[in-house]
Amino acid sequence: MLCDYYEFTMANGYLKTGQHNKITYFDLFFRRVPDGGGFAVAAGLEQFIDFIENQSFSESDIEYLRERGQFSEDFLKYLKDFSFSGDIYAVPEGTPVFPGEPLLTVRAPAIEAQLIETFALLTINHQSLIATKANRVVRAAQGRAVLEFGARRAHGVSGALDGARAAFIGGCAGTSCTLAGQRYGIPAGGTMAHSWVQMFDSEYDAFKSYCEIYPDSATLLVDTYDTLKSGVPNAIRVIKEVLLPKGAKNFAIRLDSGDISYLSKRARKLLDAAGLQECKIIASNSLDEYLVRELVTQGAAVDVFGVGERLITSRSEPVFGGVYKLVALEEDGEIIPKIKFSENIGKIPNPHFKKVYRLFDRESGMAIADQLCVHDETIDESKELTIFDQYATWKTKTLTNFSARELLVPVFKNGKRVYNSPNIFDIQRYCAQQVDMLWDEVKRFENPHDYYVDLSHKLWEIKQNLLKRR
Amino acid sequence: MLCDYYEFTMANGYLKTGQHNKITYFDLFFRRVPDGGGFAVAAGLEQFIDFIENQSFSESDIEYLRERGQFSEDFLKYLKDFSFSGDIYAVPEGTPVFPGEPLLTVRAPAIEAQLIETFALLTINHQSLIATKANRVVRAAQGRAVLEFGARRAHGVSGALDGARAAFIGGCAGTSCTLAGQRYGIPAGGTMAHSWVQMFDSEYDAFKSYCEIYPDSATLLVDTYDTLKSGVPNAIRVIKEVLLPKGAKNFAIRLDSGDISYLSKRARKLLDAAGLQECKIIASNSLDEYLVRELVTQGAAVDVFGVGERLITSRSEPVFGGVYKLVALEEDGEIIPKIKFSENIGKIPNPHFKKVYRLFDRESGMAIADQLCVHDETIDESKELTIFDQYATWKTKTLTNFSARELLVPVFKNGKRVYNSPNIFDIQRYCAQQVDMLWDEVKRFENPHDYYVDLSHKLWEIKQNLLKRR
Repeated sequence: MLCDYYEFTMANGYLKTGQHNKITYFDLFFRRVPDGGGFAVAAGLEQFIDFIENQSFSESDIEYLRERGQFSEDFLKYLKDFSFSGDIYAVPEGTPVFPGEPLLTVRAPAIEAQLIETFALLTINHQSLIATKANRVVRAAQGRAVLEFGARRAHGVSGALDGARAAFIGGCAGTSCTLAGQRYGIPAGGTMAHSWVQMFDSEYDAFKSYCEIYPDSATLLVDTYDTLKSGVPNAIRVIKEVLLPKGAKNFAIRLDSGDISYLSKRARKLLDAAGLQECKIIASNSLDEYLVRELVTQGAAVDVFGVGERLITSRSEPVFGGVYKLVALEEDGEIIPKIKFSENIGKIPNPHFKKVYRLFDRESGMAIADQLCVHDETIDESKELTIFDQYATWKTKTLTNFSARELLVPVFKNGKRVYNSPNIFDIQRYCAQQVDMLWDEVKRFENPHDYYVDLSHKLWEIKQNLLKRR
Repeated sequence: MLCDYYEFTMANGYLKTGQHNKITYFDLFFRRVPDGGGFAVAAGLEQFIDFIENQSFSESDIEYLRERGQFSEDFLKYLKDFSFSGDIYAVPEGTPVFPGEPLLTVRAPAIEAQLIETFALLTINHQSLIATKANRVVRAAQGRAVLEFGARRAHGVSGALDGARAAFIGGCAGTSCTLAGQRYGIPAGGTMAHSWVQMFDSEYDAFKSYCEIYPDSATLLVDTYDTLKSGVPNAIRVIKEVLLPKGAKNFAIRLDSGDISYLSKRARKLLDAAGLQECKIIASNSLDEYLVRELVTQGAAVDVFGVGERLITSRSEPVFGGVYKLVALEEDGEIIPKIKFSENIGKIPNPHFKKVYRLFDRESGMAIADQLCVHDETIDESKELTIFDQYATWKTKTLTNFSARELLVPVFKNGKRVYNSPNIFDIQRYCAQQVDMLWDEVKRFENPHDYYVDLSHKLWEIKQNLLKRR
């Protein structure tokens, strides 16, 4: 039932007008990368697959719709027996993606393609948003671990749970969200809040008790009273009195307020002077990729960043603007490309049932550009390929020593799942590898290089003809 | 299991150190209103109550925790039998609330109070964020209806579902989210997307078919091809040919792109010239309170605003920064106030188990200020009351003809629910009434007047003493 209401009115209308079985092609794509970034990271496919496999309408769902007084009994019966029978192609999770190219293509009877719209958008928009943001923070941290700490500021349960999943795909090392650990196998962890410290007569007692209970994973929160005068000295004392005698190797302090750059450097000096070079420093407090970058530049002595609200909500730009548009119809077995006009030429979707190729330079291994082709085209790697800008067609580039990889893979065929999702660790690894194959210019936070998403000659001509025939 | 992992490590630690049954008081409060607004709207209590009533740990939950290797069997057994036994006080949903005052006070054994932290924050932060944003948009619309259209850009399923609920509390007239309609009884609606129009040979055919199926609630989307040259003329033709002969009274066109101010005025002229004064105009397209205000100011001919991504994510500020802080402990039956220090004086919480009074001027009926008191204080309306600024104590105001209303109501008593939530329509009405009792100065979008949240003399002295004793 997580459908926009208009999907039901349209679906009922398709049935009534006999169009429900007309085969349609819908693309899910986005038009710009949040935060002015050079690329996004696709995520959310697994939850969309779950939805497709489980979408059904119960008696009470149907009763709710019946009470609206707008839907025919034929339609309600159709819903009762609903199951998805179409084909779905998708870009695997963790893939870097660019504006204008499909992350998902649905080929299905109109009525079915319409009923899965909201969920497809919802889950892919949400998780791609967070995976993209997480990847930015992780890149800013330059090899230091980033932990996702945002559940309490997330937009509801799914915001926290699926957000933690997406953050892991984007490169976070773990999450504070226990449910995400349990559900998705993401490393979940955490140690203490200020309330723990306040529950004891003294900070020293609080740290001591904690270390006695958890000698193998103690992270002491040092800012309840005074970080440098009280927190760090008490931590040092307890580490020496309790942890070192037990042979503990894995311990840390956490800074959660104040100036992280200053405090971390001072704390590092105090720890080192006490011979505790192995004690790590974790920092949290309204961090995002910009603050993390600044802290790294300033030489802050932070080993691990805990990132909360600004990651789990993608605070600086909390909307991933994916859309779901009709790009073709089948009539008598023939695929008829469709287009939606817009005053803004950048907003005009690329029509037709398409393939997406990513082109790599064989010498450097780096991604050069993506090319959208008509579904029946194939790129021949053994020949030269001249690509061109779809808006400024005189801007061309001829590729010789290149490889071409298709991004869209079959996920459903005739309603049957034909895709095994990799586990979450493999998705994370794949994401990191693929991001490594983008030039630094594309990865810059400010004014990144526009990575090209070009059209094949054939697709370009089809688009031009549709625009002329308008 | 939607708990931050550190709640489990702390809870296990409380059990191990024999502190688990120590009675604690936690306040949930926030420090600033999103978007620089003058007040927020409390929401999310109902979902928190559901959580408290249903929180339990299954065998597989316990097994997951056992596998972490950090928790004692005593603790796992405790979780198996977990049920909340404490007291909860909360501000009813829809109440305007201000920084520094508790929206929720939990009195419970430490172990229980800790285990409900993340969910309390998550749901109240999320829904208060969206209710507050919705209320801003609704006020900007000055009486025109605002519909919530954002599911596809929400942060996951709960982002859409609970977001729609919160938006309704804030004053939206309905939602596009069918599930929110079914689950929460919110009016859900919708008509057609561009794909409906594209499925037919012509826009005229698409409109005609739609109106034949839904003569009582047709909203025609007029921007698929060309709003003024094609969309509006086709809509006029179909309204006259199909709807008017059927006696339809409730129909509209929807503008979803382009310049809404210009297009709505031109469309209004075309409709009026055709004698269709009763045809409403709905506008959607990345709207928020600022754009709605501008459109209203410019005299845009819009009857209904559909607001999507910028409402459901609270795009301009997607974080509601509620925190959950220990404010008191019971020792031998005595309540000992607690405080957490901060370099930033505005971030120091108000300690102790408290009451919140809202003070109203009897003459105008308007809210004057809120006062936080110690739990055993009572405001006597028959006497003068002098309130003062807690940071600049020489700023005082003496109230004579006033009434005082307690904001926190008992929700759980000894683990039993003692509060019946009003239905969602009553919550919405209550919200509107309460917002009407705030002066316009508090409701301004830019630089609103700071509404006072003062401390009673007794509470102020307790806070000062705690700070001095630091």
